[in-house]
Amino acid sequence: MSLELWFTEEQTKNLRISCRVKEVLYHGRSKYQEIVVVDTYEYGRLMALDGAIQITEKDEFTYHEMMAHVPLHAHPFPRRVLVIGGGDGGTVREVVKHQDIGSIELVDIDEDVIRVSKEFFPTVSVGFSDKRVTVKVEDGVKYVSTKKDYYDIVIVDSTDPVDIAKVLFEVPFYRSIYEALREDGIFVAQTESPFCELDILREAYGNIKRVFESVWIYWGVMPTYPSGMWTYTIGSKKYDVSVPRRACSVETRYYNSDVHKAAFVLPPFVREWVGME
Amino acid sequence: MSLELWFTEEQTKNLRISCRVKEVLYHGRSKYQEIVVVDTYEYGRLMALDGAIQITEKDEFTYHEMMAHVPLHAHPFPRRVLVIGGGDGGTVREVVKHQDIGSIELVDIDEDVIRVSKEFFPTVSVGFSDKRVTVKVEDGVKYVSTKKDYYDIVIVDSTDPVDIAKVLFEVPFYRSIYEALREDGIFVAQTESPFCELDILREAYGNIKRVFESVWIYWGVMPTYPSGMWTYTIGSKKYDVSVPRRACSVETRYYNSDVHKAAFVLPPFVREWVGME
Repeated sequence: MSLELWFTEEQTKNLRISCRVKEVLYHGRSKYQEIVVVDTYEYGRLMALDGAIQITEKDEFTYHEMMAHVPLHAHPFPRRVLVIGGGDGGTVREVVKHQDIGSIELVDIDEDVIRVSKEFFPTVSVGFSDKRVTVKVEDGVKYVSTKKDYYDIVIVDSTDPVDIAKVLFEVPFYRSIYEALREDGIFVAQTESPFCELDILREAYGNIKRVFESVWIYWGVMPTYPSGMWTYTIGSKKYDVSVPRRACSVETRYYNSDVHKAAFVLPPFVREWVGME
Repeated sequence: MSLELWFTEEQTKNLRISCRVKEVLYHGRSKYQEIVVVDTYEYGRLMALDGAIQITEKDEFTYHEMMAHVPLHAHPFPRRVLVIGGGDGGTVREVVKHQDIGSIELVDIDEDVIRVSKEFFPTVSVGFSDKRVTVKVEDGVKYVSTKKDYYDIVIVDSTDPVDIAKVLFEVPFYRSIYEALREDGIFVAQTESPFCELDILREAYGNIKRVFESVWIYWGVMPTYPSGMWTYTIGSKKYDVSVPRRACSVETRYYNSDVHKAAFVLPPFVREWVGME
């Protein structure tokens, strides 16, 4: 075969990942961003937004399980969950595994991401069909600011902090989330890689600390994200979230109770680079 | 600037990592392999053997610390250590941090790797100057087969199992190591990524299990290796190595006692993909 197609992401100005492509399945521009779906040999189907890989079939479970199950198992009795971003549906798929949750809202600004995920990623978007899920195509920042003392868990499953996503890493947004949470609520956001985007991680951690009583960083593996080492920053009003409060009752491939605890063990360089005391 | 230089590794047939290059520092061919040293913007200086990244200044500490300190802290009183491969010196640098170790031998088949590391990676090769270290330019397979009941720890810091390194993943080599170890000896080898080289991991694990009484897989992050998730397989004659037997007495950036324990917590997909019972 003489034709070789490669999808290349510029992960930073100085670092690229490339996946060999079987087939280009979708290429379009929504109101907000460029959406690409390709089928790759290494990682299966892959969706990129403005050139940045969001999910691949082979490894998305690590990210989505860690986004959803850590805060959900750290809370004794979560009933209302809000997901901001996450239009592919992967985080919602994990949330709906918890039978005791009464309502799950997903707010994503870009309806094309939701549509494209439903069309090309049935195993990721599957959670959207759950009756407890409400999807709102809206600005998550505005949406969450209208809610007070309402949610048990808020999960921010955002893209990198460029353009429309920039405000999702800033103090006013974190304050709105704080107010939208009940008195024992828990908030989590993806906060990038310490190797490749340390400034973002450091700033997000600092901003979340200005708002929440207790803040932790935990981490997991995510092969198609820069460096493969991915962090999540969690703010809690009341509970120590570093230990699960409930046994793992859901089927998972990455998460379990021991992984929960291990994810909060930060190699010393992370503490040092982020400047955690 | 109109000239852009990139170093690209074909991590698998279908996956590439590329680092933008400031300067090419060395490019030569030894008796065994092509050796390249480039200075990159993202990861600092980088050495590749036959196109495969071995070390970068920014992330090598994660790999070398996990190779050395896990077996060393799992043993109550290690005196004699053998490192096979590892000609860059990074693993030896970590081993010499342990003051109670009496002798450290490094056996690498390719003296050019040692020479190039000494010239371009002073912070990695620094351990070679320790008086307890003996460097032997020899075939590690033959060398270890001449020793019986001698070492406390054997560390196999090899390249991927292609060409000369293939035998380093096979049963006869593991049997020689078993016999070279004392009755309470510990052996560890790097065993690739579950995402990108699952067959190699599965086979190495199976082969080591045929030889050693107790076998564990542990893991850590290594950004410039395929997928960023890296495994190490450890065979032990006597001790449970999943918990450190001694407090961490050395200066580290990735390893500590809690990281030791957390590294043995495998996400369930690893157990499933490898076929561990």
